[in-house]
Amino acid sequence: MAPRDDDPRFLRSREAIVTAAREVLLTHGPGAVTHARVAEQAGIARATVYRHWPRTDQLLAAAMATVPMPFFDAPATPTRDWLVRELTTLARELDHHDVRVVATTLAGTALWEDDVDARRARLAALLAGRLADALEAARARGEVDLHAAPRDAAALAIGPLYYRATIERGTTDEDVIAAVVDGLGRWR
Amino acid sequence: MAPRDDDPRFLRSREAIVTAAREVLLTHGPGAVTHARVAEQAGIARATVYRHWPRTDQLLAAAMATVPMPFFDAPATPTRDWLVRELTTLARELDHHDVRVVATTLAGTALWEDDVDARRARLAALLAGRLADALEAARARGEVDLHAAPRDAAALAIGPLYYRATIERGTTDEDVIAAVVDGLGRWR
Repeated sequence: MAPRDDDPRFLRSREAIVTAAREVLLTHGPGAVTHARVAEQAGIARATVYRHWPRTDQLLAAAMATVPMPFFDAPATPTRDWLVRELTTLARELDHHDVRVVATTLAGTALWEDDVDARRARLAALLAGRLADALEAARARGEVDLHAAPRDAAALAIGPLYYRATIERGTTDEDVIAAVVDGLGRWR
Repeated sequence: MAPRDDDPRFLRSREAIVTAAREVLLTHGPGAVTHARVAEQAGIARATVYRHWPRTDQLLAAAMATVPMPFFDAPATPTRDWLVRELTTLARELDHHDVRVVATTLAGTALWEDDVDARRARLAALLAGRLADALEAARARGEVDLHAAPRDAAALAIGPLYYRATIERGTTDEDVIAAVVDGLGRWR
């Protein structure tokens, strides 16, 4: 008998599995997020885990979804100040282990797992689109002469923070953020 | 009896294991690089794999070492032209699957595996040091007024290429490289 989505036991086991999958991901990495390991961590039968998420990549995507990444979603003016604020928020998020885990898992595991890759592609398109729109609007308002194409702004602005956090394993300070923002264009 | 490092059979099996580990890494990702899987791929006894690399992270590090990453190693003047050339070479390397695999594995797997983390730290320090030295020298020669601290140049210059390749899964063109280089300072 197929479980019903509104069955309280079904929802409870789903929550327990997501919590366990998150713990396994943060402690041991994406390669450890298997049905067997998550079932053991949750104290739930392996078959139950399979019933909720038949594939490993779906299970991993569910674990990753527990770390929200809401960046650049409400542009404000002056755009330069808004950009500095948003990049500072992102830099402070990237100081945390769980955000680094999700960022590196998005980049790495996406090379082999379709569900993770779809998640990576959605996030990349979302961030690139939001930054491009905000910079286009700033240019239209005469706030900035852009040095780069708006579609490249995400790579130019987020890339240094992401590299600092995940390859250099360090923190991004305000000087780097100022250099990033001023690298995008000449602000008036 | 412990094998001797110069025993031809020992060296042959070592080579077969590294080749197999590289294939598993590039095809299935770092989580798949286990003694069992690599032994199967190489057609070699699992015990032999353990004899060469007792730990999984050492095995993975050996597989990653098959993808060389020799960047920014011989500064030339004018420094701006050299930087553009080096970043272009790096961008073209990051178009390849195997380089993306190693870059994302360095960032991700390093969060859980000591040998990979040591490799990540060495590469990060090497790149940051080389770029800082080249920019300091360029400043001393009067080639550039830097907008950022030399130690931040690696994050500012490599970060956008790394983000483009691993999060946006795209290619870095010459406009982005020009924006990156001109973001580092005012070149004369």
